[in-house]
Amino acid sequence: MLSCGIDIGGTKLAAGLVDGDGNLARIERTDRHVGLGEAEMMDCAAGLAGELCRAAGVGVASLAGVGVGMTGHMRGRDGVVITTSNLKGFKNYPLAAELSRRLGARVILENDANCQAWAEYRFGAGRGYDDMVFITASTGIGAGIIIDGRLYRGQSGTAGEIGHTIIEPSSDAVCTCGNRGCFMAHACTLNLDALARGKSRRLKTDILSRPDAGGAPCGRIDGKHVYAHALRGDKAALEIIHEYADYLGIMLYNVFQFLNPQAIVMGGGLMNWELGFFDRIEAKFRELARDMLFDPLPIVKARIGDESGVIGAATLARDGGPSRA
Amino acid sequence: MLSCGIDIGGTKLAAGLVDGDGNLARIERTDRHVGLGEAEMMDCAAGLAGELCRAAGVGVASLAGVGVGMTGHMRGRDGVVITTSNLKGFKNYPLAAELSRRLGARVILENDANCQAWAEYRFGAGRGYDDMVFITASTGIGAGIIIDGRLYRGQSGTAGEIGHTIIEPSSDAVCTCGNRGCFMAHACTLNLDALARGKSRRLKTDILSRPDAGGAPCGRIDGKHVYAHALRGDKAALEIIHEYADYLGIMLYNVFQFLNPQAIVMGGGLMNWELGFFDRIEAKFRELARDMLFDPLPIVKARIGDESGVIGAATLARDGGPSRA
Repeated sequence: MLSCGIDIGGTKLAAGLVDGDGNLARIERTDRHVGLGEAEMMDCAAGLAGELCRAAGVGVASLAGVGVGMTGHMRGRDGVVITTSNLKGFKNYPLAAELSRRLGARVILENDANCQAWAEYRFGAGRGYDDMVFITASTGIGAGIIIDGRLYRGQSGTAGEIGHTIIEPSSDAVCTCGNRGCFMAHACTLNLDALARGKSRRLKTDILSRPDAGGAPCGRIDGKHVYAHALRGDKAALEIIHEYADYLGIMLYNVFQFLNPQAIVMGGGLMNWELGFFDRIEAKFRELARDMLFDPLPIVKARIGDESGVIGAATLARDGGPSRA
Repeated sequence: MLSCGIDIGGTKLAAGLVDGDGNLARIERTDRHVGLGEAEMMDCAAGLAGELCRAAGVGVASLAGVGVGMTGHMRGRDGVVITTSNLKGFKNYPLAAELSRRLGARVILENDANCQAWAEYRFGAGRGYDDMVFITASTGIGAGIIIDGRLYRGQSGTAGEIGHTIIEPSSDAVCTCGNRGCFMAHACTLNLDALARGKSRRLKTDILSRPDAGGAPCGRIDGKHVYAHALRGDKAALEIIHEYADYLGIMLYNVFQFLNPQAIVMGGGLMNWELGFFDRIEAKFRELARDMLFDPLPIVKARIGDESGVIGAATLARDGGPSRA
């Protein structure tokens, strides 16, 4: 029996059919949803799920469940999007109920980092660890917390927002949340542009140029750009990568002191960085944790690939998510 | 039916009988244990519990359980003290088994902050909040985490050590854990002496004198000393109190982003400070949390008094703690 996972992102809408072992049987993607209002986007998502089921020869009614993953604050218990920064609208929007009505099937809603955490816990690097934290670092930083084999959501559904925990109280770096000095202001690609420009002035490197265009000035600086310069040995780029690793190592340490989990799984685009990035994160963590670790605490990279959001949403729906519609 | 709670501290050993509603029926205290080795201290604790039961006319065998609370790292699942800083020895010491043998009763072992958290959850300010965090701030900073109506301990039993989470990565302030810049290096009385001496030099106040002895120089500076000066309007003392409040407010915010609990309960000696201390903690928290709070999050002072460790240990034993012996 298959279940369906739908990942609604700012630029990509994906729907996949997933079996009970976490295998993706079939997936459909579109960008038709970009710019749509709430109701039209629900039509679009329901349409994509319908196409997917037809193509696979599966009736929607025969699915083991439908799960939706979305960036932002989800009140999963009620199936309501509190707020999301990737899409217009969707303030206190009853997404699960709206999609359920269109599909004629039960729908659950969950934050995308929580979906990815569930995929890693059930089928990936977190398998077997009933107290586990999954952290994703890319544009932003998010986490999903598994406690006693269940996804821990907190009272509003927003648990795991460790990207917004404060790490530099006196910092000038402002996060999208409006606060200064949280991890997201220091260790994800949201703030790369400001950070790289500052370092470029101080270190006088050519990080502001396009590495593939003979030194022509670049536009907004993102992770790929910094990494390309780091591969060429640019000092500012390497310094950024080292700082990010150190901050993420401190974050792991804070997670350890807070929750003392059995494992921490690291996902997200930054985990594709080589140049010793992951090793440095782990080294920073172990330097801080030292003799306060009384049991092995594996720090492992995520194993489910890019579709972990779809796989996790589908599997949460099968395993019994919190929201009913 | 009564259960017995034993609180083993560095200067005080207390044993109390507690009923099913959290009422302390009788308590005995001693300092006879100070300086004793492990086995003798177990004899002393068992002796005190025996005296208590005899005085109350209750047989040890008829108790609903015996619980021990102790500062430090407790592997509660196994009833083993991993390490404690208040007493000599006790490295990987099977305390629950040793005490159980002496008493002829089942004994459970738990970290003292966890015991206090359980007392507040069952009978105090945390009642009714199944996802709750209790924080105690005094000499050190500890926490107990309640998730889904159960004490969350983590894999080694050391969950809730939020005092050791890093908040100032570039700080020079060293904690007893050996790391720099954790909350315990900045917002509890462990580091008060160094902090006050630094501020005294900078602000040229008389915080290093004894307020009750006409300006005679004081010894090691503790919380009472700083608070006495703050009451007299000493600028350095007030600055310390404000800094502590702000750090604790940031800690509450980090707890909120991490776990999104239904309530946070604050206990420990620092909560007795007036001068707007508690209000400033809460104000700092709300300034950071702003529109990211989607449900009410009460920040409340602990309600069970000084014996919450005894009451919590006794009640955990009754409710079924993790360790069997």
